Amino acid sequence: MMCRLLPHWASPYPRQHLGSDVLAGIIVTILVIPQSLAYALLAGLPPQTGLYISIFPVIAYALFGSSMVQAVGPVAITAIMTFSVLTPLAPPGSAEYLVLAATLALGSGLLLLAGGLLRLGFLAQLLSRPVISGFISGSAVLIVFSQLKHLFGLTSGSTDAWHLAGALLTETRIDASTAIGFAAIVLLAFARWGMASLLGKIGLSTTSTAFIVRLMPLFVVLGGTLAVIGWQLDSRYGVAVVGRIAEGLPGFQLFLPGLAELKLLVVPILLMALIGMVQNISMAQALAIKRRERIDANAELLGLGSANIVAAFYGGMPVGGGVSRSAVNVAAGAQTPLASIVSAFAMLAVVAGAAPLFARLPLAVLAASIIVAAISMIDLRALRQTWDYDRADGLAALGAAAGVCALGLEAGIALGILFSLATLLYRASTPHIAVLGRIPHSEHFRNVERHAVETIPGVLFLRIDESLFFGNLNAVETRLAAELDKSGDKSEEIRDVVLIMSAVNRVDATAMEVLSDINRDFAERGRRLHLAEIKGPVQDRLSRSPLWPALSGQVFLAVNDAFETLSGAAASGPQQEI
Amino acid sequence: MMCRLLPHWASPYPRQHLGSDVLAGIIVTILVIPQSLAYALLAGLPPQTGLYISIFPVIAYALFGSSMVQAVGPVAITAIMTFSVLTPLAPPGSAEYLVLAATLALGSGLLLLAGGLLRLGFLAQLLSRPVISGFISGSAVLIVFSQLKHLFGLTSGSTDAWHLAGALLTETRIDASTAIGFAAIVLLAFARWGMASLLGKIGLSTTSTAFIVRLMPLFVVLGGTLAVIGWQLDSRYGVAVVGRIAEGLPGFQLFLPGLAELKLLVVPILLMALIGMVQNISMAQALAIKRRERIDANAELLGLGSANIVAAFYGGMPVGGGVSRSAVNVAAGAQTPLASIVSAFAMLAVVAGAAPLFARLPLAVLAASIIVAAISMIDLRALRQTWDYDRADGLAALGAAAGVCALGLEAGIALGILFSLATLLYRASTPHIAVLGRIPHSEHFRNVERHAVETIPGVLFLRIDESLFFGNLNAVETRLAAELDKSGDKSEEIRDVVLIMSAVNRVDATAMEVLSDINRDFAERGRRLHLAEIKGPVQDRLSRSPLWPALSGQVFLAVNDAFETLSGAAASGPQQEI
Repeated sequence: MMCRLLPHWASPYPRQHLGSDVLAGIIVTILVIPQSLAYALLAGLPPQTGLYISIFPVIAYALFGSSMVQAVGPVAITAIMTFSVLTPLAPPGSAEYLVLAATLALGSGLLLLAGGLLRLGFLAQLLSRPVISGFISGSAVLIVFSQLKHLFGLTSGSTDAWHLAGALLTETRIDASTAIGFAAIVLLAFARWGMASLLGKIGLSTTSTAFIVRLMPLFVVLGGTLAVIGWQLDSRYGVAVVGRIAEGLPGFQLFLPGLAELKLLVVPILLMALIGMVQNISMAQALAIKRRERIDANAELLGLGSANIVAAFYGGMPVGGGVSRSAVNVAAGAQTPLASIVSAFAMLAVVAGAAPLFARLPLAVLAASIIVAAISMIDLRALRQTWDYDRADGLAALGAAAGVCALGLEAGIALGILFSLATLLYRASTPHIAVLGRIPHSEHFRNVERHAVETIPGVLFLRIDESLFFGNLNAVETRLAAELDKSGDKSEEIRDVVLIMSAVNRVDATAMEVLSDINRDFAERGRRLHLAEIKGPVQDRLSRSPLWPALSGQVFLAVNDAFETLSGAAASGPQQEI
Repeated sequence: MMCRLLPHWASPYPRQHLGSDVLAGIIVTILVIPQSLAYALLAGLPPQTGLYISIFPVIAYALFGSSMVQAVGPVAITAIMTFSVLTPLAPPGSAEYLVLAATLALGSGLLLLAGGLLRLGFLAQLLSRPVISGFISGSAVLIVFSQLKHLFGLTSGSTDAWHLAGALLTETRIDASTAIGFAAIVLLAFARWGMASLLGKIGLSTTSTAFIVRLMPLFVVLGGTLAVIGWQLDSRYGVAVVGRIAEGLPGFQLFLPGLAELKLLVVPILLMALIGMVQNISMAQALAIKRRERIDANAELLGLGSANIVAAFYGGMPVGGGVSRSAVNVAAGAQTPLASIVSAFAMLAVVAGAAPLFARLPLAVLAASIIVAAISMIDLRALRQTWDYDRADGLAALGAAAGVCALGLEAGIALGILFSLATLLYRASTPHIAVLGRIPHSEHFRNVERHAVETIPGVLFLRIDESLFFGNLNAVETRLAAELDKSGDKSEEIRDVVLIMSAVNRVDATAMEVLSDINRDFAERGRRLHLAEIKGPVQDRLSRSPLWPALSGQVFLAVNDAFETLSGAAASGPQQEI
């Protein structure tokens, strides 16, 4: 009984991991503080929200998810989505805005949970990697633009790239915030792209290098705060700071979203759930492969769904599986989700005790850390590589990126999904079909185009190498018609068609009807449709369909039986079927 | 040059068909008049609109479509869609309503035209037959409900089944209209379901029977009109009639849809284009199969698209390929689209001269003809058959029908599409994968589960029977991991994996990246990934990808080469690759 109540990783919990998990949990907490504040800001919410949702949602995910090391929390993509979806509906930071954000988290959480219960994890494959990568790159551009306001004192709150570009040209103000922001960008960019090799050169070990690099954002945040305190930058030079953070623990906020809000947010909730699912599952998978573990897509949905539902009531901002958060977790040595639970409690301690320390943290520093993180999300090399490898995939990636930049996040994802699905349908609609003949002196049948094989005049052996379903019947009909036409040219009219079903695992209702249509048409022209090598479950179904009693030809167990029977028939003229 | 300007069927036009085409054209015109008036009424437009759009749009389709006998015009499904989409936006029959209807026709026409030019005809397979049949049955129920107002004097214009049911309970008025309507329903139902067998029994030929049956709607319309004229039913008993129809030819109406209207109609336009496409292509295909002709889905889109664009400017109601219209056309002996062109000119003559005759046609009679047509669209037998054959398809059909009835047409289609796509993705995401071994003393490789074959300890031969793309990689990874795990249990750790790519026609960018990930992971564990029997075009692509130089194993032309090499390697220990 006890086992059933505990998550899989805790029954029994491997004692030897306790030390590393506790240490990793504490390190993660310290390192993700700047990021948590920054992403809440990006989402248009009070910065402390980012800390709050790093507590209970993290515990929920640890209990229900399947990944051992993935860390959930505020992430850039869901943050910018929240901002871009909600700004047209309410002023950022207003009470209404908070309720809408919580509704978004609740709605997508419920959807994800339902998806997990209904075992819809396979839907995470709805988007191809090029589309995801294009979407992320496009979002990163939007993120960078959205943060420029904190550096240049813009008043516009739009996420539209065009409006922002206009505001930059007319409203830009270079002041102390700009200076602090750019200093922070330079330091953070150096930490991310130059520091590691430099430290390596002066002889530091890889582990310490990685640790110092990861600590840099915290140093920058501390440095910025100390500068504000030391030189009174906020009161004297008007540098915008985080401001007083409500002290104490985050309370459970009971809220009931109105029907009107839900209706407004139906499409955003769907897209948020989809993006959350894709990002979370694909990252959990990448982490699991490296650690030789397995993740369960449906358990991931349960975990992410419950994390978002909890997030809705404690803070009210959607959460997701974070790339850098998880990387920190792995680098700090986490072995099981216990690390995440430890980090949740450590964060609780931070919120309870240390929150006032962030009051004079300059917004420009947070903006800088968002900008550097966003720039690192733009993967031009991957785009270039995709383009070189496959033009269609390259176009999809570019299309998704351009769609996000030009039309906004929602339209960009919708375009990406549509493109992916059209590709999928297009590929599924072109099954491989081969005309077969018999290899002389054998019972083997092979493609007539590739092998020297025997055929019977007037008999067509057609093998369909795919299950028959509504999406590919058109191709089957077209191919069949083409083969019949071809035979007409050679003036040896085909009287018998044998469909070889050895690779057909399923014949759906549409396919059964189309086969019935073909069979009826054949019967009217004195042609016969035979079926061979039907798999057991397919035959069970077909035998209770109207096709079965009406079949103009025979059902053969093996193709060779059909060949023998029909070559005899060809020699002795048409014969009656039973 | 001349040939390029004429449609394919007219270059050269087969002279021997001239007589039958002209006759068929004239018969079709006479027989479809009641239907055309009725469907315009169903769409909430002035009845004569139905006649107008049976002129120029028909010519446009004849010039650009590919079907020889399909007849386009006002159809029940697009009519009820028009009504249900537009009634919330403007009062039926108002000037604004007409502009919105024309915008709907124009928008879906442009989309269809673009679809034809971009060769997106394959998208017609987006919906499975059960979903289409469920959608049509559900729509038929809505259509019947929508017409009850003309029989029972209701004032509500809602398409919502719940509201209508309520109105029926509270507002129903039994009067002369009710009597005329029910008389018409009885006559039309008898014509459709009882008359043919009766006439057959008294010895009439099938052809004359079919002709008389098809004439019945016209007789009923004439009878109803004469009854109104003879007994002054309109002025004395308040029977609602069509009213004065503007005389003369329909003029070209220039209109420019506003951006606001377009924005409101984006989703309806998309759905209208989709439904139009599916209905038109599937019916054209059914007709073509019977006549041993071929249709070109993309040409159909061009034809239907241009017909709708023309319809927007001459009448302003979307058109589609009509089931009964086409049936009449075929039954009357049409051989080429010339029949449609003849019928267009004949309709022009009717509009010019005979329109005033319809002024006193009772609306209840038109409603009766719509109701009978709609009831014939409900195909319970097909639903039952689908349910028996395949529970999933049966549920999809029921879901689409129930969705349309409970949530309305748009939500019903959207549900149907989503269900179809989820099925598609689910099927595409489960490729067939087999572990192979060699049949002793041969170079043939077969599934180890079905044949007695030789294997090499520590070497896994895996054949993937499908192209690799973003939708099925998860299944491939899972299967690979499962096979590796299985080998771990047997304590013969697998060092070499040979992927047999003989059935892989394409490796998209996502698949290439996943293979690279697997290869990298293998390399880190001292495992090797080999590829065998790669098809030419796939190899061309892969060889310029990052996977190629990094491949931990070898590329083999034939599986047997791999078998020989690796069984040697197994005997002599791991060897270095070139």
